[in-house]
Amino acid sequence: MTTYKAINLVKRPEPGPVSADIFEVVEKELPTVNDGQFLIKQTHMSLDPAMFGWMSPDTESYIPPVELNTVMRSSGVGEVVESKHPDFAKGDRVMGMMGWQEYALSDGQGINKVQADVPDEMVLSVFALPGLTATQGLFNVGEPKSGETLVVTGAAGSVGSIVGQLAKADGLRVIGVVGSDEKANWITSELGFDGAINYKTDDLSAKLNELTPDGIDLYFENTGGPIQHHVMQHMNAHGRIVVCGMIADYDKAEPAPGPSWIPIIKKRLKIQGFTMPDHFHEVPSLLEKLTPYVMSGNIKYRAHTLEGLESAIDGLNLFFSGDNKGKLLVKL
Amino acid sequence: MTTYKAINLVKRPEPGPVSADIFEVVEKELPTVNDGQFLIKQTHMSLDPAMFGWMSPDTESYIPPVELNTVMRSSGVGEVVESKHPDFAKGDRVMGMMGWQEYALSDGQGINKVQADVPDEMVLSVFALPGLTATQGLFNVGEPKSGETLVVTGAAGSVGSIVGQLAKADGLRVIGVVGSDEKANWITSELGFDGAINYKTDDLSAKLNELTPDGIDLYFENTGGPIQHHVMQHMNAHGRIVVCGMIADYDKAEPAPGPSWIPIIKKRLKIQGFTMPDHFHEVPSLLEKLTPYVMSGNIKYRAHTLEGLESAIDGLNLFFSGDNKGKLLVKL
Repeated sequence: MTTYKAINLVKRPEPGPVSADIFEVVEKELPTVNDGQFLIKQTHMSLDPAMFGWMSPDTESYIPPVELNTVMRSSGVGEVVESKHPDFAKGDRVMGMMGWQEYALSDGQGINKVQADVPDEMVLSVFALPGLTATQGLFNVGEPKSGETLVVTGAAGSVGSIVGQLAKADGLRVIGVVGSDEKANWITSELGFDGAINYKTDDLSAKLNELTPDGIDLYFENTGGPIQHHVMQHMNAHGRIVVCGMIADYDKAEPAPGPSWIPIIKKRLKIQGFTMPDHFHEVPSLLEKLTPYVMSGNIKYRAHTLEGLESAIDGLNLFFSGDNKGKLLVKL
Repeated sequence: MTTYKAINLVKRPEPGPVSADIFEVVEKELPTVNDGQFLIKQTHMSLDPAMFGWMSPDTESYIPPVELNTVMRSSGVGEVVESKHPDFAKGDRVMGMMGWQEYALSDGQGINKVQADVPDEMVLSVFALPGLTATQGLFNVGEPKSGETLVVTGAAGSVGSIVGQLAKADGLRVIGVVGSDEKANWITSELGFDGAINYKTDDLSAKLNELTPDGIDLYFENTGGPIQHHVMQHMNAHGRIVVCGMIADYDKAEPAPGPSWIPIIKKRLKIQGFTMPDHFHEVPSLLEKLTPYVMSGNIKYRAHTLEGLESAIDGLNLFFSGDNKGKLLVKL
């Protein structure tokens, strides 16, 4: 009999850094594969800021929280090692929600095959949640127009880096907000952003004045934090604000207040929040939109890959420190 | 030679109550009416919160500020007393931007005729800025659906009272936020609102729990103030927020911060600001939408009428104290 490791969520997180004792590493027996099922050996799993929502008991959130004493939710890539399912064969590479575990039993629900020539890291960094989120948020919510100015926060992050590159490919001026000079350098030298702001060291107002001389038409918010208030002052009439993430406040007991609504009137702004679970039925059309940008070489990515299942636990705290460089993955 | 009185704006207002010395009452000679012109004797002028924007030097605003040492901008109703214009005859009743003055010379630009059987006060209280603003904001921005719950602030005010009555007529549950028990009583007993909250005396959170048991789908913001933060906590998924006015902050040097953006993501909210100058070309279709509600008796109004041109100056401060009861007008 063979066993494998999995990680269960056993407590709800408190505000502040994630404490290891909310998880429990368990040893499980490999399940029997019945008709209509197949077994996946996971090779890479993805860590995403959305996980803080999934762990929280908040019933108002957009998908139900992970139940206590069950495997932590996550997406991943793997290989089918045994199958009694008509559509999946041994050796197929697949992606989908697999959870924090080395093996996952599936009936095919939410699992999709992956093209043979796309590396695991690219699957999870571009064609999974980050790329889909960037595509939905930028194009369907933000309605970008060539010649406009976009500011994106978390610009070196998994979603922000793709948002900026898609917008650049469509002829926008793109300024990214990041938390280190290394990231600032990466998005301007490697990704082709028109400018970068280091929110930890720059004078935000002066830097926005310098880098967005024609104002801001589109603001893509991945982080929250004081930059919000400065951006609001620089928004142009009829500007759009896409609210995708607020990582700066996910670990706080009391979230910081937002900007005054006066500019929303004066500039007739539209602010729209969105989350991907509302748009899972649109994944095929989102992939259709995204793929040509990737194929024509417009989308670069970098993965920050941790080693081993248990590295996921402490890995979550990299979202708060901002010390990850690129899409956070765990190699199994 | 006959003269008339006008009021010029001679200084920009400071934060806080409007000081009388920013205006100057002047005596002017009645102008000569040339070909293509006509002279209007104004009978009622309208005071609107938008005037604070018009007086401010803020060049980012949606229409240019009133130039110093020119007549203060305002809309009004009057009668044509002399005409050399082909489309307007002596005796016609007209409405439009006439300014703070007893007589106005016009070339017809922005001036419309008024039906004979609609009283002056109804013209300015319903068919002018308040009703057009309510119609545009509620229907075109807010997209209300029968059975939904609407919360509107400034609910006894000129715009809010119409928003609530239009929504009631379309089958929504309507809760109004007001600043006195008298106004609370008026909107529930006379206008048919389902409930009222006195923001000065009620426990806002408890009262929202009691009056919006199914949450809030649509929030129409006319005032700003702490109620914003509580409403955000009660918004339903896919809720819409229409930002029309922020009178609570117009007289403050430093506007109060707004709510955190976290609920915007969790609940996928849309927040949209609008101002009427963007929609002046849509006035005919807005009137077409609004008129049937008025004709079927669904829209009640009350006017708070001041007497004499100079009463306009101090009248502006009623917006901050909230002591006006109904649409603020000045009878000339």
